[in-house]
Amino acid sequence: MDQVIQRLRRFRDERNWQQFHNSKDLAMALSIEAGELLEAFLWKSPEDADPEKVKEELADVFAYALLLSDAYNFDLEKIILEKIDKNEAKYPVNKAKGTAKKYNEL
Amino acid sequence: MDQVIQRLRRFRDERNWQQFHNSKDLAMALSIEAGELLEAFLWKSPEDADPEKVKEELADVFAYALLLSDAYNFDLEKIILEKIDKNEAKYPVNKAKGTAKKYNEL
Amino acid sequence: MDQVIQRLRRFRDERNWQQFHNSKDLAMALSIEAGELLEAFLWKSPEDADPEKVKEELADVFAYALLLSDAYNFDLEKIILEKIDKNEAKYPVNKAKGTAKKYNEL
Amino acid sequence: MDQVIQRLRRFRDERNWQQFHNSKDLAMALSIEAGELLEAFLWKSPEDADPEKVKEELADVFAYALLLSDAYNFDLEKIILEKIDKNEAKYPVNKAKGTAKKYNEL
Repeated sequence: MDQVIQRLRRFRDERNWQQFHNSKDLAMALSIEAGELLEAFLWKSPEDADPEKVKEELADVFAYALLLSDAYNFDLEKIILEKIDKNEAKYPVNKAKGTAKKYNEL
Repeated sequence: MDQVIQRLRRFRDERNWQQFHNSKDLAMALSIEAGELLEAFLWKSPEDADPEKVKEELADVFAYALLLSDAYNFDLEKIILEKIDKNEAKYPVNKAKGTAKKYNEL
Repeated sequence: MDQVIQRLRRFRDERNWQQFHNSKDLAMALSIEAGELLEAFLWKSPEDADPEKVKEELADVFAYALLLSDAYNFDLEKIILEKIDKNEAKYPVNKAKGTAKKYNEL
Repeated sequence: MDQVIQRLRRFRDERNWQQFHNSKDLAMALSIEAGELLEAFLWKSPEDADPEKVKEELADVFAYALLLSDAYNFDLEKIILEKIDKNEAKYPVNKAKGTAKKYNEL
């Protein structure tokens, strides 16, 4: 993933865009792209979404998520694994198995 | 990132959650988490956001984005690099440099 | 607002769209439009957003919010006023005055 | 709806919150609440969403949409009716009837 992050940085810097990329606007951009991804599924059953559209919008989501992570110097794999650890505690298998309830309703 | 995806799958399967994880609901979950990430920046200047909250919500965004990508069997790095290629064409350096305009306004 | 809701219903029914308008997809449509509204403010200070774009996207947000409210037969003014009552209790003036903290941090 | 807007203004002003309510953050707050509304439908069929949760989150969406509209001095009914006029042109009945396609695919 390091190579991808480097290309994202280069794409940004060649255009002199870092001036716009504060963390708040990056989080907004990510949320906007998540909405565009959602649009691929609107008024449809899941299997009728166009995989090409899903692919492109999901790539945009990843791009902004990686730029935001990079802005904070997060170790990407580490923060995800730590969050899974937390979720293991919030959703113990014996309570959460087979139910979609939120942790505070288990 | 493969190890992370494997842990996400195991977390899901131990809880028997794949039944809920159709692509439409995964895209919804991603969008909901993007909203929670946005909340870390609400009513604040970017530098006043709590990095701990940003870290946790961004990890959730990545988790659902990875699960969705996995559901489609996408090659994650490849789809991001392909999207950057497309954006290189949409935002040529000589037109896009230093401006935050959308490609259709350049 | 009743006249507006009636026009929204007629617009929908002339196109035979009620078949797509289940509450889950209406909530998704509302979220997608909220993302498009957000885009009017991306990479900008608030006063640089184009009021025409804000107007159009906000109108779309209202349209789906009204259709969703109508699908549940909510009394629109009543549910907003009731929520303000709840928020009065969650954010007592003496604690919340002048601070943007969330109720659980007050 | 005027009475509702007046109560929203009073709620805000008693807490001295107008300082936080610039249009960009209001649009963010609206988007965040739209995400919370979406959560009422996550991993569920539409009819299994809790109407109480839908009611509360939809009320929050309306509250921020009204505050944003108020910040721009929009005539709320007028902007929605004008947008329906535009959509009548974008989605002519003879082309759009019975299909969920986007206007640019009709």
